[in-house]
This record gives sequence, C-alpha cells and structure tokens, in this order.
Amino acid sequence: MPLPALAVALDVNETLFSLDRMAARLPPGALPTWFARVLRDGFALTVTGDAPRFRDLALTHLAAFTDDPEGVLAEFGRLDPHPDVRPALERLRDAGVPAVTLTNGSSDPVRAMFAGAGLQDLVQGYLSVDDVGVWKPRPEPYHHAAAHLGVPRDRLALIAVHGWDVHGAKRAGLLAGWCSRLEGALLTQYERPDVTGDTLVEVVDGLLGGPR
Amino acid sequence: MPLPALAVALDVNETLFSLDRMAARLPPGALPTWFARVLRDGFALTVTGDAPRFRDLALTHLAAFTDDPEGVLAEFGRLDPHPDVRPALERLRDAGVPAVTLTNGSSDPVRAMFAGAGLQDLVQGYLSVDDVGVWKPRPEPYHHAAAHLGVPRDRLALIAVHGWDVHGAKRAGLLAGWCSRLEGALLTQYERPDVTGDTLVEVVDGLLGGPR
Repeated sequence: MPLPALAVALDVNETLFSLDRMAARLPPGALPTWFARVLRDGFALTVTGDAPRFRDLALTHLAAFTDDPEGVLAEFGRLDPHPDVRPALERLRDAGVPAVTLTNGSSDPVRAMFAGAGLQDLVQGYLSVDDVGVWKPRPEPYHHAAAHLGVPRDRLALIAVHGWDVHGAKRAGLLAGWCSRLEGALLTQYERPDVTGDTLVEVVDGLLGGPR
Repeated sequence: MPLPALAVALDVNETLFSLDRMAARLPPGALPTWFARVLRDGFALTVTGDAPRFRDLALTHLAAFTDDPEGVLAEFGRLDPHPDVRPALERLRDAGVPAVTLTNGSSDPVRAMFAGAGLQDLVQGYLSVDDVGVWKPRPEPYHHAAAHLGVPRDRLALIAVHGWDVHGAKRAGLLAGWCSRLEGALLTQYERPDVTGDTLVEVVDGLLGGPR
C-alpha cells in the first residue's frame, strides 16, 4: 500500500450521482447504450486531439431515444446521489482530506446537484475537463486536479466506478480507488487501483489507510 | 470534389457485415450497448497509448449479457454481409480500383467471412490495426493502408458507417465515404466525409467520380 491520500478527486456521473432519473425518461435499456456512445465518441475525439463537448454529444445521442433530448438532459442538474456518497464525504471531512469533483462534463450541473442534495459543504471545488481542454483519461485533467489542490500527484487519489478512469489516473501518476458498484469486475486491460471497495465508504477508508 | 479514389479501405463490422447473428444470441437491445462499450474501452486505452485487443474487450463485455461469450463471439467469423456489399465491391473491381479491409479487430475472422460469403476474389487484402499496434481513429492504421496499397494518402478512401472512422481518416489525410445505413446522421463534431450515401454502392459511385 502506498502512502495515504492527502486529497481526493471524485468522478461524478454514476460514481456520485445515479443516472436513474434519466433512465426513467428513456426506453428500457437505453441509458447504458446512450452513455457508452457518449463516452465512445468523446474518447474517439480525444484520440484525434479534439476537445469534445459532453453536452453536445449527450444531446445528439439522446435524440436516438427521445423526442425531448433537452428535457432529458436537464435531469443532469437534478440527479440523486448514491446513498454511500454522504458518509464517504463525511469521512473525508472528518479526516481533514479535501475533496473535489473531476468530470468529463461541465461543472455547473455538478454544483447544482451538490447544492440540491445539501452536500455542498463537503467538497472544496468542482473541476472539469473544460478547465484544460482535454478529456480524461488523458493525464492533463488529473494533473490539473493535483495542481489545483496543491498536493503531489502521487498523494492525490482519483475515485471512480469506471475502469477507464482508474486506468487514466494510475497512468497519470495518481493513486486510484475503484468502487465496484457499477461494473462489478474491472477490465483486465486496465491498470489496477490501489484500493477497491463495494461502496465509496470502503474505498475512502482504504485510501485513508484505515479499515477496509 | 477532390480527385477520385485510386484505392479504398473498407471498415468491417457493421460497415460490411451485419452483427444481427450476434444480436440474436443476446437479450433484446444488448448488442448496441455491447458494441459501444467495446469501442469505448478500446478508445480509452488508445488515449493512454495502449494497444487494446478487440477480442479481449469483446469477450469481457459479452459476459455481461450471456453465459456463453465464447460461443457468441464465434459468430464473428460467420456474420452475413449487407446486401449492398457485393455490388459495391463489384463496381470497384470493374473500375480497376483495389480494395482492402481495415478493422480494429483481427484479420482472421474477416478472411473467413469473405470466404464464407464467396466475396474473397473482390478484395486484395485484409488489414488490421494489429499490423501497427494502435487502433483507429489514430492516423497510423490509415497510413499503413495507403503504404500497403502503394497509393498517396489523399487518393485512398476510407469507407465506413461510423462517424468516428470517417473523422479519423480525414484527419489522417485520406478521402472518406460515409454510408448512413447505420447511424442515419453524422455527429456534427466529426469531420465531413467527401462522399455520403445511403448505401455502399452510392458511396463507391461518389468516390469513383461517377453518378451519385
């Protein structure tokens, strides 16, 4: 186990906030296809050196499943946090470890959702790939978070439910905690996280050097 | 309109061969999610400079939908060509324009499918990203195809039903023909193709400078 994390950067969509409200407004089974397509095209554009805009990709791909893509996308500011988010953030606060969000989307809906859920006092900032112009899993967004927080890269922990995000963080020199809540198993092609847990609370405990 | 294509490189999955045989062995709606996830993770690994293996990603993600991922994946050597494939390839042959396949997967199942469909005399080779170690839409696979065929990059046309492939080809300096059969509309974030058609025949006609 490496040294404990001095700060954490939290992925947002699916890691902190459930997409169930969007899923409920789409045909059965459409949500996972939609989200995989948004990331597929965002990553393809990242491969070619472009700066994709999450909102544009999200709207375009929603149009395949609904006559009201704008209305469905508006749910992005109203998503509910998973039940393990508050206790995990409280543990970080109690340990004196600052936390920021770090998303491939925009910061504004994230700020709105934290306020709506009454969680805004538990994080120190809302970072976005918009700040650096390239998406995760390129290293720049992870490095930006470390610089913003003023901690060495190898003492900043990325926390996510997505294997590709863990992979990018590890390649960028960060610590990483992977929560198995969404994917169940981590793709073998991806770098291993420093900590794995079934809930965000277990992941935070591991990253702080406490009980697993 | 630029100068006509001297050679073409054809994407394989969904462009030439239908994935319906795989879809029939998965739950309703699973196929698009599966394929988007495979590309999502392949592109994420391409962003971080890795060389993903299509087969590994395909198997892992099939396991979310079937107890027999190996069996379903074996369909990849038995897929049926879309009905516009033979006439499009015959037009290329009649025009004296060589054609190769260029896939993010392996060449072996492609060779098997061409033989199974009796199309093997209509292409000059089966290229794969395995030849260069990185996936499309990075430029290397497209450049490899031009070198293999001995034609200038700007006289080689990539033909695909996927916007990300058209985008990568254009960024790599190739011509590109996009067939709207799968996606219907091209993502506005992607580079425009030189030719668009509802069928591969229309795309080929356009790339050869003939009637649309």
